[in-house]
Amino acid sequence: MYKLKKLESGVCAANGFYADGVSAGLKSGNAKDMAFIYSSTECEIASVFTTNKMTAAPIRHFRDKGDFKTNFILINSKNANAMTGPAGIVDIDEILQTLSATVKNPVMSSTGVIGVRLPKEKIIEGAKLFDLKKREPNSAAQAIMTTDSFSKEIAFEVTLEDGSSFRIGAMAKGAGMINPAMATMLCFITTDAKVTKEEMQEILDDATLRTFNAASVDGDTSTNDTVMLLANASSGVYDRAAFRDALEKIMRFLAREMVRDGEGASKLVTYKITGAKDDKEAEVVAKSLSNSLLVKTALYGEDPNWGRIASTVGASGVDADEKTLSISFNDLCVYNKGELLFDKKMEEAASEVMKLSEFNISCDLGLGDGKFTSFGCDLGYEYVKINADYRT
Amino acid sequence: MYKLKKLESGVCAANGFYADGVSAGLKSGNAKDMAFIYSSTECEIASVFTTNKMTAAPIRHFRDKGDFKTNFILINSKNANAMTGPAGIVDIDEILQTLSATVKNPVMSSTGVIGVRLPKEKIIEGAKLFDLKKREPNSAAQAIMTTDSFSKEIAFEVTLEDGSSFRIGAMAKGAGMINPAMATMLCFITTDAKVTKEEMQEILDDATLRTFNAASVDGDTSTNDTVMLLANASSGVYDRAAFRDALEKIMRFLAREMVRDGEGASKLVTYKITGAKDDKEAEVVAKSLSNSLLVKTALYGEDPNWGRIASTVGASGVDADEKTLSISFNDLCVYNKGELLFDKKMEEAASEVMKLSEFNISCDLGLGDGKFTSFGCDLGYEYVKINADYRT
Repeated sequence: MYKLKKLESGVCAANGFYADGVSAGLKSGNAKDMAFIYSSTECEIASVFTTNKMTAAPIRHFRDKGDFKTNFILINSKNANAMTGPAGIVDIDEILQTLSATVKNPVMSSTGVIGVRLPKEKIIEGAKLFDLKKREPNSAAQAIMTTDSFSKEIAFEVTLEDGSSFRIGAMAKGAGMINPAMATMLCFITTDAKVTKEEMQEILDDATLRTFNAASVDGDTSTNDTVMLLANASSGVYDRAAFRDALEKIMRFLAREMVRDGEGASKLVTYKITGAKDDKEAEVVAKSLSNSLLVKTALYGEDPNWGRIASTVGASGVDADEKTLSISFNDLCVYNKGELLFDKKMEEAASEVMKLSEFNISCDLGLGDGKFTSFGCDLGYEYVKINADYRT
Repeated sequence: MYKLKKLESGVCAANGFYADGVSAGLKSGNAKDMAFIYSSTECEIASVFTTNKMTAAPIRHFRDKGDFKTNFILINSKNANAMTGPAGIVDIDEILQTLSATVKNPVMSSTGVIGVRLPKEKIIEGAKLFDLKKREPNSAAQAIMTTDSFSKEIAFEVTLEDGSSFRIGAMAKGAGMINPAMATMLCFITTDAKVTKEEMQEILDDATLRTFNAASVDGDTSTNDTVMLLANASSGVYDRAAFRDALEKIMRFLAREMVRDGEGASKLVTYKITGAKDDKEAEVVAKSLSNSLLVKTALYGEDPNWGRIASTVGASGVDADEKTLSISFNDLCVYNKGELLFDKKMEEAASEVMKLSEFNISCDLGLGDGKFTSFGCDLGYEYVKINADYRT
């Protein structure tokens, strides 16, 4: 057995990791817009990237380098360096070149507006402000925010039965363009566990399916989505089950935080799908619900419109039948295998559930053992406001 | 050759067709909520229905009857008779039974709220108000509206080279839940052309792909979507090419009208996709764009955010490459195969296009000959308002 203990020190929780954020003038009003993560020793890297074909330059740059270790990540917000062609790659090379005396194989990651060249000079000047001895994880977490309304961090200390321990810490950004296929999200995870590259990649891929890939704000998938896990092995300790559990908890927490911070969102809804023909069909239903505009606006209106839920299940393309379907809001079953339960009294009870800031919508399809859980939010006026004129 | 002449008489344009709308108290304030279409002679029927698995009772009822002719359609708004199980079928039987003395094999069609039993008595009383000698196509078109802000009708007289002619008329409702896989839409088309059932079904199926199935308001697909084409052959005239052309023009007009009337929509945007690997991939891109929340909110904000368009193309899953992609707003090319054209001056010009109530967004993927055109709208505060509390 092992114990997990929550720590406050985010991406600096693990031994040997440093981080901070600075203002390079990319955002207005001296807001922090550049962050670094530094490890005193080199790290193995595991990563998951967007499936978007218009892959942003930083991701292409990372992939082009093949297999390597690093001790430094440079992150900027406000500009995604996407759709910038070969020039976008050259810009990264020139920026990272200025760091080559102090760090090993630095990696760059960007988020923000698409289709504008990086303000290279500002970023090079900004990087000169970095102090690699700083441990300011929240400052780093704030610097990578775009439309986020709060920063997102978490860390665990994992203590094994023999008393030895390792740590995992993380920060993420993301509040929109978050879709079951990754998100406009960046997530950086650091650990001092003594894990191999292959094993942490396998665990990261698997956990992504049930965490970041199960979270949706608006169904869009960005050019820059990145999850990066750095391991410097400095604790000398590792246990697969414990690492896996802690990592997935961290990723689930951050995925839920992103949805909770969904642009204009006021509710975090967990869609629990069971009884589908198989897990894949359950996943299709769960993601259809968390992406449906009609469901999302009904959530915003706190309207227990279970008919839209049924219709969305039916429209998702999987095997479904109104005679075997049941639908619940938390523990309140509002439709049961063809039985119209929804009277005035139940509507009042269901409306009370809808007023909560967090609740579950469960659909049992009654056809098999397939199950999947996704996370979604409502869509209200604020979403429109935030997205109608994002660039200005 | 043949000539098309536009007529004002909607669903009553073709010889022998009658229609009207009445108020049965389903909607509040004496608004019309029931309509009929009657033909003095029996009609062959072609139809296209929703792919939603939670198929509404009227569609199941129609299908269960197998092959038949009819001279009467009864349509109600405000209640969809969906998720109502076997009781929903019994309700239809009882309602139609009351009409059996006056009409032949009557068909029922419904639209409105899901998961509530039909107010059967009100509908039976309402049907007694029908006067089968009435030709009030606009009254019928108004009675089938739900969230529509205007009624949708069109008709053509088709004159062949020898001077003989036939007519096609139609009405439709639909303003939301309209998706590339049909829509919460009802469309009734009447014709006096002498066309066989098989031929008109084939032409209807084919035209649906490029018209109703290319229109999107919010990406949702309803339980009740129905396109029904009735032919009473009373003109004795038919020409395949002319019929096909007129029918597709009618369907495209109505599909565009539905998008123009999209809940809260202020812009009708045509997405012209070319250069995809094949037509299917072009269709995926076109529909991804017309369904993207980020694109739709950018349209609402009149923000020429071509980066979101590129990102959505990339996220659609088809073959795409920033080095071969180009994007235009009307005739203004804003991104050309890796070339960042977008400066201050172009932004101003692009913003002018975005202010129009109708414009094209063209994407050439530069990879092949595949093409597809879809219709979409913006998404603004009104959409949220309309959908946050639809049932009340």
